[in-house]
Amino acid sequence: MSKRVAVILSGCGVYDGAEIHESVLTLLRLDQQGAQVQCFAPNVEQMHVINHLNGEEMPEKRNTLVEAARIARGEIKDVREARMEDFDALIVPGGFGSAKNLCDFAIKGADCSVQPDVLQLAQAFADARKPIGLICISPAMSARIFGEGVECTIGHDADTAAAIEKMGGVHKPCDVDGIVEDTNRKLVTTPAYMLAKSISEAASGITKLVDRVLELA
Amino acid sequence: MSKRVAVILSGCGVYDGAEIHESVLTLLRLDQQGAQVQCFAPNVEQMHVINHLNGEEMPEKRNTLVEAARIARGEIKDVREARMEDFDALIVPGGFGSAKNLCDFAIKGADCSVQPDVLQLAQAFADARKPIGLICISPAMSARIFGEGVECTIGHDADTAAAIEKMGGVHKPCDVDGIVEDTNRKLVTTPAYMLAKSISEAASGITKLVDRVLELA
Repeated sequence: MSKRVAVILSGCGVYDGAEIHESVLTLLRLDQQGAQVQCFAPNVEQMHVINHLNGEEMPEKRNTLVEAARIARGEIKDVREARMEDFDALIVPGGFGSAKNLCDFAIKGADCSVQPDVLQLAQAFADARKPIGLICISPAMSARIFGEGVECTIGHDADTAAAIEKMGGVHKPCDVDGIVEDTNRKLVTTPAYMLAKSISEAASGITKLVDRVLELA
Repeated sequence: MSKRVAVILSGCGVYDGAEIHESVLTLLRLDQQGAQVQCFAPNVEQMHVINHLNGEEMPEKRNTLVEAARIARGEIKDVREARMEDFDALIVPGGFGSAKNLCDFAIKGADCSVQPDVLQLAQAFADARKPIGLICISPAMSARIFGEGVECTIGHDADTAAAIEKMGGVHKPCDVDGIVEDTNRKLVTTPAYMLAKSISEAASGITKLVDRVLELA
């Protein structure tokens, strides 16, 4: 029977939302492996709207769920509608949206908190010992979801690793084509565009992460 | 030596811009095959801004190039800066943006015209006999680029095929995992989400298209 996977997106675009390549590569591998996928996003205003051509903030308001719907071709729901019982695993791609709209790590670092609807859902998966895959910067939420001692990776970035350790996480360095698994907690993480210099490099780690999450499910 | 490929995007999101999956799948395959890629988009206001969650038009203005920069992670240029001499091939993914921002096929059908900067670049490739790949609805521009008798596909949609024939094109039916090649004109087309029911299906045709365009380059 095909595995049912919830994917949480955080907008649409690396600088203010979900990283688009990572999100699409995740959906591609899940589909290639025969998983049933439902995308979700929090129904909240984005922290920022960034002009991706020049990197400047735009004087606009955009909604995280409405923009994430672009990646999901409209097939997306408010994360409040997600029931852990309906799924075998949870995956969260990266992008600044993960650190701006799913939590506020981008501005608060180790003092960050996770958006309540996202936290509730992720902790439900953790409590049920269903596997979770966190990609790119999303592992910054690991200690908030799982508590102290959780093992994860964001690659090699010293400042981000230090913030994760300050929150009680255990950071494991990892190359772009690798994954780190916390076996007890069924958490799988990969650096993707924290390190990737090309879309193929991002794909290498994401493909391994998806495959391992599905094996654990 | 690696092939240099120009990719024209038309925004960011299936209903008002470039289809995101098709765009990313194109970039992925090009990178996997070792091509050097430069993304471009026309620096024009989008015809529409569509809320991808509910399908309704939003009372906003967005710029095609600025939004397309989301897919390209900022690595994109105004299509006016593209010089045919610098590239071996041209590929245009689909999405309504192709029929709204690269041309106006979405509202004018067989009476459509192609955005002047896009038309000039595409015709330069055609005149130089450098291969062009058009994906999904983008082949609706074929007759405007190449003139009468050009062979292409948008899959099986009768109305779209009829509009292509009215413009002087020759429509060849094609399944989602296939490509149609106009050998004389070095034009390769594939239906992608004109037919695809999943991202894997879209990938099957796009992968073949990219591989064939690179062979012809």
